[in-house]
Parts: sequence; structure tokens; C-alpha cells
Amino acid sequence: MKGILPPTEVEGWVNAHPRWKFADGKIRKKYVFQSFRSAIVFVNRVATISDELEHHPEIRVNYNEVLLRLWSHDAGGVTDRDLALAERIDFATSAR
Amino acid sequence: MKGILPPTEVEGWVNAHPRWKFADGKIRKKYVFQSFRSAIVFVNRVATISDELEHHPEIRVNYNEVLLRLWSHDAGGVTDRDLALAERIDFATSAR
Repeated sequence: MKGILPPTEVEGWVNAHPRWKFADGKIRKKYVFQSFRSAIVFVNRVATISDELEHHPEIRVNYNEVLLRLWSHDAGGVTDRDLALAERIDFATSAR
Repeated sequence: MKGILPPTEVEGWVNAHPRWKFADGKIRKKYVFQSFRSAIVFVNRVATISDELEHHPEIRVNYNEVLLRLWSHDAGGVTDRDLALAERIDFATSAR
């Protein structure tokens, strides 16, 4: 089990990845879609990726907006697994 | 467009519907599932019902837990539409 990353490393990653933010020991990003239905399609895509990586984000859906928050519960902060999950999710939605 | 319900009416409804709570002008309920996958199946069921009723809850997924919060943005509180949506969701998941 890997430990949490140094804050400077997470901040560097966040600066290199548009609209991701780092706060409270978590990274988060808000996605805005055309509709509630498109938001739900995205949630299902995230769910599939999460199951593949065996690592799961917190997901908040408010109509056409989805907020993802990623951290590693066991480690108590952001680890390589969170950055890997975030990159996979953004890659899968790179059209937007 | 209907207006918000009197708090006493919402409290009466909440008391009659297990595990629903009323706070901050919203009704909410936490559902706990066996797995992340089951939680996502539930989210999709909620999404289908929401589209049918043209009324959408806030949905928060944290691994196997789903928190729903319902209120009517336009009215600024809980209306008949929220109670109808809540009842439909609970009916669709009445096995648990």
C-alpha cells in the first residue's frame, strides 16, 4: 500500500491538469454537461473505470453538474492511485 | 408552479417514511448497498424515475452509500413534487 504524496507533488500535478483542484487532502473536479442524462452517462463511465482500477471516487450529481472528489481512504490522502484514476477519467472524457 | 409545503406537513411526511430526514429545506435519505456496483445500479434507477417525473434529486455516491437530497430549486424548498419523487424512489427499491 502506497503512502500519501507530498503536497508539493499533488500541487504540481493539479497545475498540469486543467480544472482539477487540491484541497482538504483530496483532489476534485467539477464537470458540467448539457443535460442530467449526459451527467448520468458520465457517472456510468466513471463507475466502469473505477471498477477496473479498483479505486472509487466520491461522486456528486446536481442535475447537469458532476463533482468528483478523489482520495485514498486507507492512506488518508492523495496517492498515486488517485492521480491514475483522475487521468483515466479525463482521458475517457477528453472530448469535453 | 406549486409553492413550498408547510414544515409541519413535511415533518409529518418524514415521520411516516422510514429513514427520510428533513433539514435545511430539503428531504434526504441515505441508502447503503452491498457494493459500489449496486449503488450505481440504484443511481441509474433513480435517474430513470427522475426523468419520468422531470424532477431531479441531488445524488452523492461514496462507494456503497448513496445520499439523496430532494428539494425544488424554483420554489426554494420542499414541494409535492419532492414527496412524489421520494415515494417513487422508495417504491422502486422497496425490497431493501
